[in-house]
Amino acid sequence: MQTDTAMQTLPRYSGIPTFMRVPFAQRLEDFDIALAGVPFDGGVTARPGARYGPREIRNMSSMTRAIHHVTGFNPFEACRVADVGDVPFTDVFHLERSHEDIRRFFEPLFAAGKTVLAAGGDHSITFPVFQAMKPRRPLGMVHIDAHTDTWDDFLGSKFSHGSPFRRAVEAGLLDPKRTIQIGIRGAQNSDQGWRYSLDSGMRVVFIEEFEAKGVEAIVQEARRIVGDGPTYLSLDVDGLDPVFAPGTGTPEIGGMTTRETLGLLRGLDGLDFVGGDVVEVSPPYDPSGSTALLGATLMYEILCLLARSVAARR
Amino acid sequence: MQTDTAMQTLPRYSGIPTFMRVPFAQRLEDFDIALAGVPFDGGVTARPGARYGPREIRNMSSMTRAIHHVTGFNPFEACRVADVGDVPFTDVFHLERSHEDIRRFFEPLFAAGKTVLAAGGDHSITFPVFQAMKPRRPLGMVHIDAHTDTWDDFLGSKFSHGSPFRRAVEAGLLDPKRTIQIGIRGAQNSDQGWRYSLDSGMRVVFIEEFEAKGVEAIVQEARRIVGDGPTYLSLDVDGLDPVFAPGTGTPEIGGMTTRETLGLLRGLDGLDFVGGDVVEVSPPYDPSGSTALLGATLMYEILCLLARSVAARR
Amino acid sequence: MQTDTAMQTLPRYSGIPTFMRVPFAQRLEDFDIALAGVPFDGGVTARPGARYGPREIRNMSSMTRAIHHVTGFNPFEACRVADVGDVPFTDVFHLERSHEDIRRFFEPLFAAGKTVLAAGGDHSITFPVFQAMKPRRPLGMVHIDAHTDTWDDFLGSKFSHGSPFRRAVEAGLLDPKRTIQIGIRGAQNSDQGWRYSLDSGMRVVFIEEFEAKGVEAIVQEARRIVGDGPTYLSLDVDGLDPVFAPGTGTPEIGGMTTRETLGLLRGLDGLDFVGGDVVEVSPPYDPSGSTALLGATLMYEILCLLARSVAARR
Amino acid sequence: MQTDTAMQTLPRYSGIPTFMRVPFAQRLEDFDIALAGVPFDGGVTARPGARYGPREIRNMSSMTRAIHHVTGFNPFEACRVADVGDVPFTDVFHLERSHEDIRRFFEPLFAAGKTVLAAGGDHSITFPVFQAMKPRRPLGMVHIDAHTDTWDDFLGSKFSHGSPFRRAVEAGLLDPKRTIQIGIRGAQNSDQGWRYSLDSGMRVVFIEEFEAKGVEAIVQEARRIVGDGPTYLSLDVDGLDPVFAPGTGTPEIGGMTTRETLGLLRGLDGLDFVGGDVVEVSPPYDPSGSTALLGATLMYEILCLLARSVAARR
Amino acid sequence: MQTDTAMQTLPRYSGIPTFMRVPFAQRLEDFDIALAGVPFDGGVTARPGARYGPREIRNMSSMTRAIHHVTGFNPFEACRVADVGDVPFTDVFHLERSHEDIRRFFEPLFAAGKTVLAAGGDHSITFPVFQAMKPRRPLGMVHIDAHTDTWDDFLGSKFSHGSPFRRAVEAGLLDPKRTIQIGIRGAQNSDQGWRYSLDSGMRVVFIEEFEAKGVEAIVQEARRIVGDGPTYLSLDVDGLDPVFAPGTGTPEIGGMTTRETLGLLRGLDGLDFVGGDVVEVSPPYDPSGSTALLGATLMYEILCLLARSVAARR
Amino acid sequence: MQTDTAMQTLPRYSGIPTFMRVPFAQRLEDFDIALAGVPFDGGVTARPGARYGPREIRNMSSMTRAIHHVTGFNPFEACRVADVGDVPFTDVFHLERSHEDIRRFFEPLFAAGKTVLAAGGDHSITFPVFQAMKPRRPLGMVHIDAHTDTWDDFLGSKFSHGSPFRRAVEAGLLDPKRTIQIGIRGAQNSDQGWRYSLDSGMRVVFIEEFEAKGVEAIVQEARRIVGDGPTYLSLDVDGLDPVFAPGTGTPEIGGMTTRETLGLLRGLDGLDFVGGDVVEVSPPYDPSGSTALLGATLMYEILCLLARSVAARR
Repeated sequence: MQTDTAMQTLPRYSGIPTFMRVPFAQRLEDFDIALAGVPFDGGVTARPGARYGPREIRNMSSMTRAIHHVTGFNPFEACRVADVGDVPFTDVFHLERSHEDIRRFFEPLFAAGKTVLAAGGDHSITFPVFQAMKPRRPLGMVHIDAHTDTWDDFLGSKFSHGSPFRRAVEAGLLDPKRTIQIGIRGAQNSDQGWRYSLDSGMRVVFIEEFEAKGVEAIVQEARRIVGDGPTYLSLDVDGLDPVFAPGTGTPEIGGMTTRETLGLLRGLDGLDFVGGDVVEVSPPYDPSGSTALLGATLMYEILCLLARSVAARR
Repeated sequence: MQTDTAMQTLPRYSGIPTFMRVPFAQRLEDFDIALAGVPFDGGVTARPGARYGPREIRNMSSMTRAIHHVTGFNPFEACRVADVGDVPFTDVFHLERSHEDIRRFFEPLFAAGKTVLAAGGDHSITFPVFQAMKPRRPLGMVHIDAHTDTWDDFLGSKFSHGSPFRRAVEAGLLDPKRTIQIGIRGAQNSDQGWRYSLDSGMRVVFIEEFEAKGVEAIVQEARRIVGDGPTYLSLDVDGLDPVFAPGTGTPEIGGMTTRETLGLLRGLDGLDFVGGDVVEVSPPYDPSGSTALLGATLMYEILCLLARSVAARR
Repeated sequence: MQTDTAMQTLPRYSGIPTFMRVPFAQRLEDFDIALAGVPFDGGVTARPGARYGPREIRNMSSMTRAIHHVTGFNPFEACRVADVGDVPFTDVFHLERSHEDIRRFFEPLFAAGKTVLAAGGDHSITFPVFQAMKPRRPLGMVHIDAHTDTWDDFLGSKFSHGSPFRRAVEAGLLDPKRTIQIGIRGAQNSDQGWRYSLDSGMRVVFIEEFEAKGVEAIVQEARRIVGDGPTYLSLDVDGLDPVFAPGTGTPEIGGMTTRETLGLLRGLDGLDFVGGDVVEVSPPYDPSGSTALLGATLMYEILCLLARSVAARR
Repeated sequence: MQTDTAMQTLPRYSGIPTFMRVPFAQRLEDFDIALAGVPFDGGVTARPGARYGPREIRNMSSMTRAIHHVTGFNPFEACRVADVGDVPFTDVFHLERSHEDIRRFFEPLFAAGKTVLAAGGDHSITFPVFQAMKPRRPLGMVHIDAHTDTWDDFLGSKFSHGSPFRRAVEAGLLDPKRTIQIGIRGAQNSDQGWRYSLDSGMRVVFIEEFEAKGVEAIVQEARRIVGDGPTYLSLDVDGLDPVFAPGTGTPEIGGMTTRETLGLLRGLDGLDFVGGDVVEVSPPYDPSGSTALLGATLMYEILCLLARSVAARR
Repeated sequence: MQTDTAMQTLPRYSGIPTFMRVPFAQRLEDFDIALAGVPFDGGVTARPGARYGPREIRNMSSMTRAIHHVTGFNPFEACRVADVGDVPFTDVFHLERSHEDIRRFFEPLFAAGKTVLAAGGDHSITFPVFQAMKPRRPLGMVHIDAHTDTWDDFLGSKFSHGSPFRRAVEAGLLDPKRTIQIGIRGAQNSDQGWRYSLDSGMRVVFIEEFEAKGVEAIVQEARRIVGDGPTYLSLDVDGLDPVFAPGTGTPEIGGMTTRETLGLLRGLDGLDFVGGDVVEVSPPYDPSGSTALLGATLMYEILCLLARSVAARR
Repeated sequence: MQTDTAMQTLPRYSGIPTFMRVPFAQRLEDFDIALAGVPFDGGVTARPGARYGPREIRNMSSMTRAIHHVTGFNPFEACRVADVGDVPFTDVFHLERSHEDIRRFFEPLFAAGKTVLAAGGDHSITFPVFQAMKPRRPLGMVHIDAHTDTWDDFLGSKFSHGSPFRRAVEAGLLDPKRTIQIGIRGAQNSDQGWRYSLDSGMRVVFIEEFEAKGVEAIVQEARRIVGDGPTYLSLDVDGLDPVFAPGTGTPEIGGMTTRETLGLLRGLDGLDFVGGDVVEVSPPYDPSGSTALLGATLMYEILCLLARSVAARR
């Protein structure tokens, strides 16, 4: 029978797919970093499908490997990494009760001091993840996205994927002064979200500024803004151009390239990351799997950042 | 500029797509039969996407034409048919409040004596349509589907697309003795739904019986069951085999063919139809548009039944 | 964290996908029937890709459920069913050594008296499965396929997916007199395979005869031919028409329908099945996943047959 | 270097694709039956793309083989079959001048007594093929299609793909009394075409009658109608249901199955066929290639009919 | 019933799709800027399908919104913008007569002083649009494209999509000295087109020069060349790289990025634009809709330019 | 009938597709440069399908044309270019014997002094091509790829697509000091390959260095490294980013753009190229054909380099 330990040496098309072919763990003592799926898209305002994100990211993540080609770092040697499965949703037609399910799933993980890397689902999931973290001081955040996600309400709710970071600031979970939003673009029917981000003190880097200044300058600014406090990394794949991430719900043309995104992520090495997520991969709009492969590879890059932070905290 | 009246003679790839290229009407006095979209999939239990059903059915319905090749009947000559647009949803993250939006949209139409043909959306929409009808006596129904949709609750709700007809019976809107469900199949984790249908007195025709007896026998039985009272026709495209309707959320192999479905529908001519719907067309799973074309063509066939009923009631 | 036992009640898009969401087992004492993947397509003569078959069948098999709608039988209550993972291939560029890997994987399962349901992979895998079974008397077989797979050699090898049953007869593992091949069709450049099947005593039911006589007659003949001895069920999805199984390597138009296939399989209930497989699902040619869903559903149907046999042997 | 003669024994994915891997011939003396492409879709009224039909049918025709599994007949042994390439269009924006190009291409072939099997292209091409044949007496025809293609004019022209057979009757090239049209269906905005077919004496078999009477009865009627005079076989793939032929410009649900079509074609064996075509394969709407594979396989079946006629005429 | 005014606040998947969800207008007095579809591809030399461009651009344009994220400009507040429907083609098989239909449709719009933004259709449509404008002095033009479209004749016609700007110069409608062509690339079988552009005085910016000099330098040169006279903006989506615009008829690798294109367009703000078009979106080659989304977003960007010009002319 | 000489003037969708519509040659005296297909993917470690590469590259290469838009060079005028067909594989299930088939096919071509441009097939094919060349001194090589392909063994073989250049160095066919590998990236489970390349003296340009230094600097370094000795150009399409080359077996995000690749190739003009290949185009993962179009266009660019070398050697 198939054994967990054999996974990395087998052909990449074989085996039951956990994230990056790590072991599926059911006991807290077996891992340092938890890879978790949050199959929920009840907070989207346009195209659905991100509920299938964890499944297809797992599927394509069999293509990722261990040793980083730039740094030589191997996160699987630095830390014990496990797949802890998916949030079990019990009330899928109810946005706020589903957020409660998310909170309940992550609370014991954070309480046990685990570092978490989540695969969405839509971006509304980050707010309950923050709630589950119960951070002692408001979090800093590097946020890659086409949208600020700081709208007040959308189509009848304050908890959709357009609002998580406004809710997080209001709840004292997120420090807007230690938040940088990168890749923002696209017309809007109201400037409410852009304004909230700026008024609350977030640093908003529209794509035009990003391109004009270049990756390195934005890296330096991001490092300065989040500083050395605990920081979260939230990556909405629609921060990238739709050619790199077609499988998403609210695509906006003119976004970041994969090379820019990789450069940006790698530049953040050494910050004190306590968690992260990759959200808005929507497989029904990704028939070739390219967005899932992107999501899986970006999860690997973020895992390297998290593993460095975990190792540094020892 | 484009004029409404020119639509039928123009190439089928031109023009802003209303259902079957009928006029877009905004006044009740302009039509007898309303074609309406219900872009809602907040009630699905598996694959989403039916929110885009009305849009893509409209798109493909430019391929439908006027004169029925079997009967020579032209529904557009028999009645004034209009596209009344889509239900305007105001609270899209809330299943029951969305059902309220549906009710509010259809109530004035039914109150004015209009006959309605709706394009879903998921099957949960039929319950609020029934509520909007406020039928004086419980409706009869011919229901084509892979699933009985008479489950009690699913994943935390009693109003998902698995429950509309149980709710309708409980609310006194649907007469189970005048209800026939055709095409039922597929394993289930509980037999609750099948049992409710049978216990309440519905006639459940599993696909195996349908195949064994043949279309004509089932037609006769359907006519006998619904009788001459007011009757609704609800067609879930997953009643057909997935090869005919790949773009749907809960496909079950081994379903009805298009020829059987067409034969069944045509056999119902002359019943007293007061409304109908085609639901569960999910465009994200229908990249070729074949399910939308199917949905559009079945809407045309049902329109012929409705138009005959409207004409007969004059 | 996700627990195995929760799988069946969770939304069907959640969780790490084992076959039909059964537990992943690593100990022989935990199950009666093993569901196993054989991700190998090194034996195909035309379009590759079946190496991804187990992965995508697992993915889509989350859509299958427990209680059979015709019989009310629940195989998961009748037997302990587990996913034992995939054959670990060590020498993927070598056809015969890969067959050796298959043998090695299945031998302990059969030696422990387990019943096995395998997901291919190409059809060449059935020969090493037979070798691993070491049946005391040659097996009977119900074989659904467009091709007899009894060619002598193809493109340089005697072990490709065109030859497994010729090899099996030669090795004394398969009893041609107790073998029936159903759905055969398609032109050939040589009649070698057809002739071998007929000359060795197999019953070859070409699709034209199948259609003319009907499912029930073929069921009766199949039951008579295999009799009450130990029997294997091998289902190549290209036995079905390409509209039902587009994702396969050697499609032939004009094949069986899903309804015919389901009728045929259900008619075999009560035979003494000792194992089975579903092969030739090729995901690169199945972008919509419809063939994987078909494969998963047919595995469920075959699982019902196997579970009845296991229960009967107790 | 690759040699023509090696084609049939090589893997089916190799080699420059001629139709069915026959030799590409440039001299009239090298073949009896010419397979020719007519890459033209300037006559379509809805979805274009059939200009790519010959190319993709050639591509998929590498999957066809030689010996018919029902009859054992091998058309490549009975006759010399060659691919003569494509009609060279010189004036692609002009419908009637393009028809002139078609005529010019086929005239020398017919003049030399060759039998021709053409791959369209849209159905408008059949009229200039008939003109090139210059038949001494009007042709009989077995015509498989969803549409009668006997409309008078469409969107400004009398030569679109909706009119070839009206033009052919008017030109004395086609004998309506020896013409049978099978598979007709789908609503129309005018009954002009149906009426012309019936009024001129053609036998029109709507799909409902086809299904009710069965293949064998229609075969017998077709044989009686065309009799023993020279006969043409024109097969529009939209005669089949769109699930079998999604890649076409004017799909109509509820059509013929592949098995019915194969049964019908095989039943015509022995008639005096002088030519044939397979038209309306539109690759842009056929991403999986299934319609091209269908087209190629149906060409093989028609080739068998033509080869028998050629052999019989010797 | 659905009301026009509600469109912008409804979910983006609902409603009958006009361009950018603006009102459908049928009276000249209701708007300043007309968005119009030209569903015609009878002028293409390779892959067809642009006849479906207007329809799918409308469909995806529901994703566009009002306030520009760089400028804060809202074109819908600055001007009255309406969808005037599609050019009604009456003679679709005839290239020159179809151009006549285009002329006839646009003449009253231009005569009434409206500004027009057209969605193609292939690039041949721009010549009759120019004719309808009857500009008092030859137009200047910013032309984004992979091809100069100044060939003399192609495959039998002088009016294909390879020739509109040669015809326009000859007709005195376009001033080559005030014309800049940007993004040109790709091998050619003759250098006729390149040579005509250069010889007539057009500024031809091949992609290599564009990349070397950068967007800003080309913007400055474009502004200088077109000057302050009336100017047209013609954007063929194949000016962009095929990864951004896969759904087009004549893709050439190595083209402009979306960010470059957006930068270029925005740099043209303040020029005196009198009209524009986005052409060569071919939906059959765009199954994911990404090219239609691109086309819709670029139309929004061009609309901002036009609205500024309209406002400036007041 | 179709004639070879007419190919270039016909519509690009017509005719039997040879590479770039050049003549199919069967005699050595008819050409200087041979375009050859190697339909083999028996050496891949992940996703298969490159066996269909030659076929689809041929198909899309009808879109390429003659005169280079930057240089004005026409390779078809400078040299006689022919399509010599595909390597005839006789033993497709055996990696090393298939390599033998490749050697046998190319040996007479090289022996006759022909220059060869091959279309793969997976990258394992380059080693037997080198063997067939029997170069008098070890070759220099410009190698564009995401992977160094200098691993020792993979999944049981030393001859997979991960090893050709290690084998070539060991065999004295490739001079590592005159080899530059460009575009390398992606995590690995072992650093064996990277290390071998560096230790043997190859110049390895990771994508990050490539981006930082720019195309021109790498061009200069490549020219210096390969010098004026005989040089081979091997281009694996996965060297480009997956958005440009989705249809490949081992995609790695963050790769080269088409514009960078074109700039790099054109910068190599004047080196002494003796052969080249484009490999790893995998059509089953390329449903839109964009990767095949890329492969065809890059073959045209490499053909220009080869034709200049051939002309220079005269």
